Amino acid sequence: MTLWVRYARDGAEGFGTLDGESIAIHAGEMLGGATPTGESLALGEVRLLAPVQPGAFIGLWNNFHAAAAKQGNAIPEFPLYFLKNPRCVIGSGEPIRPPAGYAGKVLYEGELGLVIGRRVCQADEAEAAAAIFGLTCVNDVTALDLLTADASFPQWARAKGCDSFGPIGPAIATGLDWSALRVTVALNGRVRQDYPLADMILPPARIVSLISREMTLHPGDVIACGTSVGALPMRPGMNVEVAIAGIGTLANPYAP
Amino acid sequence: MTLWVRYARDGAEGFGTLDGESIAIHAGEMLGGATPTGESLALGEVRLLAPVQPGAFIGLWNNFHAAAAKQGNAIPEFPLYFLKNPRCVIGSGEPIRPPAGYAGKVLYEGELGLVIGRRVCQADEAEAAAAIFGLTCVNDVTALDLLTADASFPQWARAKGCDSFGPIGPAIATGLDWSALRVTVALNGRVRQDYPLADMILPPARIVSLISREMTLHPGDVIACGTSVGALPMRPGMNVEVAIAGIGTLANPYAP
Repeated sequence: MTLWVRYARDGAEGFGTLDGESIAIHAGEMLGGATPTGESLALGEVRLLAPVQPGAFIGLWNNFHAAAAKQGNAIPEFPLYFLKNPRCVIGSGEPIRPPAGYAGKVLYEGELGLVIGRRVCQADEAEAAAAIFGLTCVNDVTALDLLTADASFPQWARAKGCDSFGPIGPAIATGLDWSALRVTVALNGRVRQDYPLADMILPPARIVSLISREMTLHPGDVIACGTSVGALPMRPGMNVEVAIAGIGTLANPYAP
Repeated sequence: MTLWVRYARDGAEGFGTLDGESIAIHAGEMLGGATPTGESLALGEVRLLAPVQPGAFIGLWNNFHAAAAKQGNAIPEFPLYFLKNPRCVIGSGEPIRPPAGYAGKVLYEGELGLVIGRRVCQADEAEAAAAIFGLTCVNDVTALDLLTADASFPQWARAKGCDSFGPIGPAIATGLDWSALRVTVALNGRVRQDYPLADMILPPARIVSLISREMTLHPGDVIACGTSVGALPMRPGMNVEVAIAGIGTLANPYAP
């Protein structure tokens, strides 16, 4: 298993592999063709960035059995997805801010994120599995009152695409088996969401395969696999930590 | 008024300004800092490409009074938008194809497209107007049966984001006043959609200003302003032409 991170230091950006508190600096392309330079940095010397800037940022709705049962939703056979504004991505440590003038509820949603490593079009599940570079944590932030502000048109893109509403990171884990892992979300240290990825309705390879039938995916694209029960509004000043064992903890303050 | 085009020729891409049948080749950045090289090409020597590759591709729903009245929708005060997959963009002349295995209805929707020229965040209407680089034609193609395939979740992103579902072009017109123009769509030469842009509910500068309150827009982003009455399914083999005087004709065959 390898953990990939992107970082900023002295005004420049770089990337590498994380081993404990040390980053082995790499050159080339993270998603293919990266080689170690032989240099390293201490984690404390850098500021971590979002590990990837997606060209397309897809989010699934209704992809966990527990949440579907609780909300009375049917089990989907095809991924039910929205597109998040790809520029809403922020890294661990950066503040989540509601838009100016918005005083409604803002929800966290802890999710597993898939990072696409190669172009994938009309792929079967084996090909789709091979196209997933690695896994990351996603906080699929949602301005709930924007989603429901117009009775005739649910505003998924707007409610989930506000600037800063896409924390991802802190790293991308390659070679990690998702099936026995759990997603937890803690607010100021108190765990409020804790669910097993094994409860997923459509698993990663099937998600990628099905979406790729209609929409070609590209290196760096991110798919958030949907959340389960326990997504709640954040209160100002709260620290929100999405954690998956093997990936790490994505921590962002909610700072209206 | 200036017409900007992007083109491919001999395996290389370029851009320039179109004057009749001649393209004045430019160097630098189309959206700011372009200078003529002094060379030119005949339009017949090149293949036109989509004039821009957006990072974000926004589409409005319910933004014309005539369509709102016909469909019984309330008049929105904020843009009701979805995000189209930005990679679904194709240029004039390229075929629109439904996804493999899809046998349902595929609609054309002729629309005015706004091309953003500079970063715009929390802008007032004057600043927003200045951030619009120019205007283009958009065919906001929609797989209608995918939109409505799941009763619990309208699939806007999926239905409008299939590969090839975002024809734009053939050019970007700068310095063009939209307010007296009409959008027409002809199927095999027969006009099926013909509506005045003056019937728009939220005009371009207000759309950009309002969206920028929540979501920062970037150079090259495209906003399709919504369609009016007359959007209909295409039949295989049809040639679909979206035309706006001063911009030109965006022509794409529907080729399942």
